[in-house]
Amino acid sequence: MRARLLEATVELLVERGYAGTSTTLVSERAGVSRGAQLHHFPSKQDLVVAAVQHVTEVRGRELEEAARRLPRGARRTRAVLRMLGDHFSSPVFAAALELWVAARTDEALLAEVAPLERELGRHTHRLTVELLGADESVPGVRELVQATLDLVRGLGLANTITDDAHRRRRILDQWALTLDGALGTPGENA
Amino acid sequence: MRARLLEATVELLVERGYAGTSTTLVSERAGVSRGAQLHHFPSKQDLVVAAVQHVTEVRGRELEEAARRLPRGARRTRAVLRMLGDHFSSPVFAAALELWVAARTDEALLAEVAPLERELGRHTHRLTVELLGADESVPGVRELVQATLDLVRGLGLANTITDDAHRRRRILDQWALTLDGALGTPGENA
Repeated sequence: MRARLLEATVELLVERGYAGTSTTLVSERAGVSRGAQLHHFPSKQDLVVAAVQHVTEVRGRELEEAARRLPRGARRTRAVLRMLGDHFSSPVFAAALELWVAARTDEALLAEVAPLERELGRHTHRLTVELLGADESVPGVRELVQATLDLVRGLGLANTITDDAHRRRRILDQWALTLDGALGTPGENA
Repeated sequence: MRARLLEATVELLVERGYAGTSTTLVSERAGVSRGAQLHHFPSKQDLVVAAVQHVTEVRGRELEEAARRLPRGARRTRAVLRMLGDHFSSPVFAAALELWVAARTDEALLAEVAPLERELGRHTHRLTVELLGADESVPGVRELVQATLDLVRGLGLANTITDDAHRRRRILDQWALTLDGALGTPGENA
């Protein structure tokens, strides 16, 4: 029942945004009584934070799963970047974006969202370093990994109001070539 | 009076978000009667779209002004990127973000915001090409300029929920070095 409520919440965040998501709509969508819902999640804030946390965990596991199937060798960086780009352009990113933007002007929500976001950022950073085989003891490498993640976040934002998949792929493929040059990883030019 | 209404709207978008901005609050803040306000802007949508357009134009002119004062030579790329990074982390970016995110789940608003966003994107792209002295006839250069703008957009988003100025500067300074290498522009290493 808990999972049903959380998944209904994410669906509504994606379809109607933060302002358009109400606890009434969530209980209707999930087919759960108001009483049972209030027992699990007393407020809208409890519900949306738990929902975004839940799907972030699920998606994080999917990402690690997908990462295990990535090719080794010359085309690896490109495959890693395409995977990250798709991850940050998913419906879950849209749900998280709704939460971040709402938190910007809602102190109580921000107090919940900011630590969640920091933890997620650290986790994604560690995973990216590992996937790229980047050596962060080399000056500048840490910043390039961070730049890569800020880039895919920016691409994710662009994708929310237009279908940007084609442009995203061209940009990330070029970024992969540049990154291979800068990181000394074995790229297409090797 | 028109400018007062538009500036009050942007202030409210920054402080209270899209959902928290109402035409009543705007007329109060601007010190303009409801009747006069409705004469200029019949709906909230008319008001917020015009407001974001207005400040985007003002900020665009400020950006071009600032661009004229940028240094030439080895440190130019770094200065260009810092300027763009600050531009995408300003309160006006937060106001525009509120509008984009609201437009994601509001078709009528999206029909107004999408062309505005495309035009702004083209303008910022042209300006960035010019400022960096980038030659887009060289394969890959166009994509690196676009990546740079998606990167600063991602950094702008990160900055909305934490003060990210220090991290942003480190990332952009490193990207400037990498970009100079990739574009063949005269960088710090020249």
